[in-house]
Amino acid sequence: MSVYRLLISCPDAHGLVAVVSQFILTHNGNIKEAHHHLDEPNKRFFMRIEIEASSISCSLEELKQIFRTLATQYDMSWQINDAAKLKRILIMGSKSSHCVADLLHRDHEKELEGEVVGVLSNHQRLGKIASWYDVDFKQVEINTNTKDADIAKMTKAVDLFNPDVIVLARYMQIIPKDLCEKYAGKIINIHHSFLPSFVGANPYKRAADRGVKLIGATCHYVTADLDEGPIIEQDVIRVDHGNSSDNMKKMGQDVEKITLAKGLQYHLEDRVLTCNNKTIVFN
Amino acid sequence: MSVYRLLISCPDAHGLVAVVSQFILTHNGNIKEAHHHLDEPNKRFFMRIEIEASSISCSLEELKQIFRTLATQYDMSWQINDAAKLKRILIMGSKSSHCVADLLHRDHEKELEGEVVGVLSNHQRLGKIASWYDVDFKQVEINTNTKDADIAKMTKAVDLFNPDVIVLARYMQIIPKDLCEKYAGKIINIHHSFLPSFVGANPYKRAADRGVKLIGATCHYVTADLDEGPIIEQDVIRVDHGNSSDNMKKMGQDVEKITLAKGLQYHLEDRVLTCNNKTIVFN
Amino acid sequence: MSVYRLLISCPDAHGLVAVVSQFILTHNGNIKEAHHHLDEPNKRFFMRIEIEASSISCSLEELKQIFRTLATQYDMSWQINDAAKLKRILIMGSKSSHCVADLLHRDHEKELEGEVVGVLSNHQRLGKIASWYDVDFKQVEINTNTKDADIAKMTKAVDLFNPDVIVLARYMQIIPKDLCEKYAGKIINIHHSFLPSFVGANPYKRAADRGVKLIGATCHYVTADLDEGPIIEQDVIRVDHGNSSDNMKKMGQDVEKITLAKGLQYHLEDRVLTCNNKTIVFN
Amino acid sequence: MSVYRLLISCPDAHGLVAVVSQFILTHNGNIKEAHHHLDEPNKRFFMRIEIEASSISCSLEELKQIFRTLATQYDMSWQINDAAKLKRILIMGSKSSHCVADLLHRDHEKELEGEVVGVLSNHQRLGKIASWYDVDFKQVEINTNTKDADIAKMTKAVDLFNPDVIVLARYMQIIPKDLCEKYAGKIINIHHSFLPSFVGANPYKRAADRGVKLIGATCHYVTADLDEGPIIEQDVIRVDHGNSSDNMKKMGQDVEKITLAKGLQYHLEDRVLTCNNKTIVFN
Repeated sequence: MSVYRLLISCPDAHGLVAVVSQFILTHNGNIKEAHHHLDEPNKRFFMRIEIEASSISCSLEELKQIFRTLATQYDMSWQINDAAKLKRILIMGSKSSHCVADLLHRDHEKELEGEVVGVLSNHQRLGKIASWYDVDFKQVEINTNTKDADIAKMTKAVDLFNPDVIVLARYMQIIPKDLCEKYAGKIINIHHSFLPSFVGANPYKRAADRGVKLIGATCHYVTADLDEGPIIEQDVIRVDHGNSSDNMKKMGQDVEKITLAKGLQYHLEDRVLTCNNKTIVFN
Repeated sequence: MSVYRLLISCPDAHGLVAVVSQFILTHNGNIKEAHHHLDEPNKRFFMRIEIEASSISCSLEELKQIFRTLATQYDMSWQINDAAKLKRILIMGSKSSHCVADLLHRDHEKELEGEVVGVLSNHQRLGKIASWYDVDFKQVEINTNTKDADIAKMTKAVDLFNPDVIVLARYMQIIPKDLCEKYAGKIINIHHSFLPSFVGANPYKRAADRGVKLIGATCHYVTADLDEGPIIEQDVIRVDHGNSSDNMKKMGQDVEKITLAKGLQYHLEDRVLTCNNKTIVFN
Repeated sequence: MSVYRLLISCPDAHGLVAVVSQFILTHNGNIKEAHHHLDEPNKRFFMRIEIEASSISCSLEELKQIFRTLATQYDMSWQINDAAKLKRILIMGSKSSHCVADLLHRDHEKELEGEVVGVLSNHQRLGKIASWYDVDFKQVEINTNTKDADIAKMTKAVDLFNPDVIVLARYMQIIPKDLCEKYAGKIINIHHSFLPSFVGANPYKRAADRGVKLIGATCHYVTADLDEGPIIEQDVIRVDHGNSSDNMKKMGQDVEKITLAKGLQYHLEDRVLTCNNKTIVFN
Repeated sequence: MSVYRLLISCPDAHGLVAVVSQFILTHNGNIKEAHHHLDEPNKRFFMRIEIEASSISCSLEELKQIFRTLATQYDMSWQINDAAKLKRILIMGSKSSHCVADLLHRDHEKELEGEVVGVLSNHQRLGKIASWYDVDFKQVEINTNTKDADIAKMTKAVDLFNPDVIVLARYMQIIPKDLCEKYAGKIINIHHSFLPSFVGANPYKRAADRGVKLIGATCHYVTADLDEGPIIEQDVIRVDHGNSSDNMKKMGQDVEKITLAKGLQYHLEDRVLTCNNKTIVFN
């Protein structure tokens, strides 16, 4: 059963739920799932509604056309997405393969609400896995002495994949500001710490040095501020004095791959809205 | 800010959200929070809506009166509760005090959306704590040779407290069937295992014997079927070979008291609806 | 740095730690890690000691030879394993690939203290993944009408792989009693529930029906009693009323693969000893 | 059954386990529990051994006297504690009562390996609860304009309680440097965040602002560097966009009290050793 997903973010106003649900009813729409959230400090209202596509008495284009009037009236940011139209996923990786292999396998098993269209990496190492899963692989080296040109090449390569969402699966390179802006809200990173702890490099080393009793991973949208974008999902596991920094790195890989997959899936299912630097995750 | 809480459970029907939100809008109601759930296997729809009380243009009684017509039309089970009217909580305990002391302290700190009106126990031990917190205490012993008469006394004592909700805080005695029925959906128990593991007596001993790596607690509604009622909340903690059955019992007390308090709070905030033997918890 | 791992299980006796550590010192051994456990109810003592291999002044064979006298004196079950000698892992799977792909990838990345020597399955489906990772694949169909002969073939196929440990990665077929006995303490299964909840078939369906708030997975040694063997590792994740039985199945796959990998790794590192039907996991 | 607890921290050396276990055997000691840890980066060895007190063939004083020679030889920091001698616990609190009430109740139920000898607070509010549990209460106000004199009074009050361990149960005032030094390794604080996230004031507000998906609490030893002391125990709970900063504060109280009680209990049972700014917790 195919669904349309209506996402709304707008200033709080009286009767919003009634108006929107009345709109859906007028077009004969059958609501499968509905979530609302009022952000009190910002007086902003958020909705996500899943509508049975086949119940709608007009085309998706017509529905959007008609909704536009309502949306303008209430100053809404909005989308209506057809779940049947899978999002194009570009995976960017470096040397470590745990997240990339995990995502490619989920794609292979049709577990993602999207399709992986390519793997882009600064190293050759991931090429073999991509080929197994019959996914396009593109290597763009990033060298210190030709950095600007390399980044330009990489940026062009990204565009050629025409992605709906870019997943930084331990890519380990800085994403240039213009790429962040062009794909704002569409680049998802996995950071290997429980942010805001250990922003930046070597989080496992620093976690071991600080003697924390839990380590974690954070899946977040990428903004020009490194490790400061809106957090989609986080998780932790227990460690103790017996775990060296290297142990933690190994143990952490499982949290990284699961947390990234979970955060990505929320995004693919249009479950994530943002309010300033925070996310609303309707799951 | 006071709120009314509208709870609905009814057969799924086209336009339910629109009709209900239109009803609220008609009476000028401001929606603070809204949750919906469609139980697919049972084709049943569940809603919980928090409405700003002061925004409603009529009295609560009038609102209920008018809603009745709508409710009949859609065959709804429903309530509209005024959050300002605190639920009367009766705590039933036995010898162990961890859950009772925890709940009494939360009540003292006004953390519960309710007020503890009494502690009823088959032992004298909890009397002292109840008196500290200035809560009525009533002891009704349950003796093997006068069991039927004792249970009758206990049942009468329960009624005298006129409770809206009864919390079995490790009460350790069977609740008679007629009491279960009279207070159906209003008796909350904490079972000291992760149900359905270790139904019945001595769960920690049996958990230790089976060598499980996690132990837990389950907060559930009480029905005539022991440990089989709808589950409201569960949690677990990690144990290992170093933990004896006695250790587990001690460690488990923390999970018990937190899980019971959480489950109770959901109930007090009218967040729990039931669908056959399962709960929908709108949190 | 290579290590020997000394594992001991014996009746509790005065001076055991002193005698064993004196023995190691006599042979100039350097202890890298040591764990002890006294099982009080069974009055049994368990030890695991990691000794720097290069520090030992004799060969491993000589060390074993000399230890034998001590072992006899204290009625010990014991092993001294050379960590450099990797255990041969046979993976048995069926149709679902999440655990198998995860293990093969860990093997490929040299994360396991062992080497996967083969994948054996009753279906053809896993053959492709095995070939990617350059691992032998063998299919032995189990048909209802030729079950006994098929199981005999499967048993023979197992033996041909000459495995040190057999991993049932969602194999979904009953393991015959004689295979259980032949490889006692060497067959590891992942059960898709938090045992002892939902022993047997369709645990996710039954979890959904019971309305539990956490679902889990259990990694355990296989014995002739289905789902009753010693538990090595368990974990859980939170679910709610919004998760159908099918959702739970998908969500549970992540817990299954992580829990299986963790339990297997403990086994490969000789961290698991058994005491009746329970495990001591020295991690 | 009473036990002695031998704690050792020393430079790593060949044969340490053998020498120490031989020493215990020589005095006929029965080992009930033993833990070892080698900190590789610091080449330091840590041991904790529980010895059945009644098995030792000499007095505790004699045992210490004899051990001194061995300790000097290996440059050990060490203690041998008689578990029967309960540690004197001083609780310091402010206005919020959740941690204090929880600890007092555990003390009342004899769950702590120690005895609460007093509650010291800058406010009057906790006096009532202390009196219920028949524990001495002392109020020392800390006023901005008489701060130095007040802190001097507070310090004197601390000394009068003659505590073995001081628990800052949400005390909310800075502990002066000389008090930190006098009771080094004996002051335990609960910080209401998952350190090193949100060091300093208002962690829940800042957690809500950052939009984290888990909040936590950290039990640590107090040093002159605020929130930077060795971490004993940490835990987290899940939050989402629906939880305001005030919600998080309420939800966090449960994690705070459980984490503080757990960390304190480890300390009381002599399970915590420190290595620079990290803890080894032998549990």
